[in-house]
Amino acid sequence: MAAADSDPTACPARLILEHMTSRWGVLVLAVLLDGTHRFSELRRTVGGVTEKMLAQTLQTLERDGFVHREAHPVIPPHVDYSLTELGREAAQRVWTLACWAEEQAPQVLAAREAYDAAKSRG
Amino acid sequence: MAAADSDPTACPARLILEHMTSRWGVLVLAVLLDGTHRFSELRRTVGGVTEKMLAQTLQTLERDGFVHREAHPVIPPHVDYSLTELGREAAQRVWTLACWAEEQAPQVLAAREAYDAAKSRG
Repeated sequence: MAAADSDPTACPARLILEHMTSRWGVLVLAVLLDGTHRFSELRRTVGGVTEKMLAQTLQTLERDGFVHREAHPVIPPHVDYSLTELGREAAQRVWTLACWAEEQAPQVLAAREAYDAAKSRG
Repeated sequence: MAAADSDPTACPARLILEHMTSRWGVLVLAVLLDGTHRFSELRRTVGGVTEKMLAQTLQTLERDGFVHREAHPVIPPHVDYSLTELGREAAQRVWTLACWAEEQAPQVLAAREAYDAAKSRG
């Protein structure tokens, strides 16, 4: 890692990590681990995401080579999204980290409470 | 993961993940994997970080229970930062992911070039 440089373009890993661990990136990757999904299915499954944010997230992940987009020129037209081989590995890795964070949540929340209590005591 | 809720407070894992994978969070955790460091050492080792951002990052990681802060009331006073047991595990996991992202960078950059070339061809 090029840690000693403040220019983000100098560290491509930083941007890759950002895309993988973004709020919607994590969830989209996780849902696609299940298999191919249409845009509307992803929209439903990833709760709370706007159409615009989902489109943007998918485009970023497609551009990084994590997601494969396939448009079917049928009537009505539809678009399928699936993970590439690289995307599958990214998804598994980031999902493992997310689940670890979820497991540690009680411990982290307890630490925050203790920290805040100590601060408020001065 | 509470994927179906847009309220970030409903998903503590999200915020934990954000702190671990933040630009400076990743680097601070990585440097502390090496051992205890003073603020000024961290500032020097994590290139490009401002004093304010480093202080904020350390405070967030301390509040989450990942970093232990120890102030030494000597002259001149100094403050040591080290990883807690939980922080060590977080650091190892996030650093493994960052290194994976670094390894995949050439493949991701090639995917981006191909994507952009296809787009510019219309």
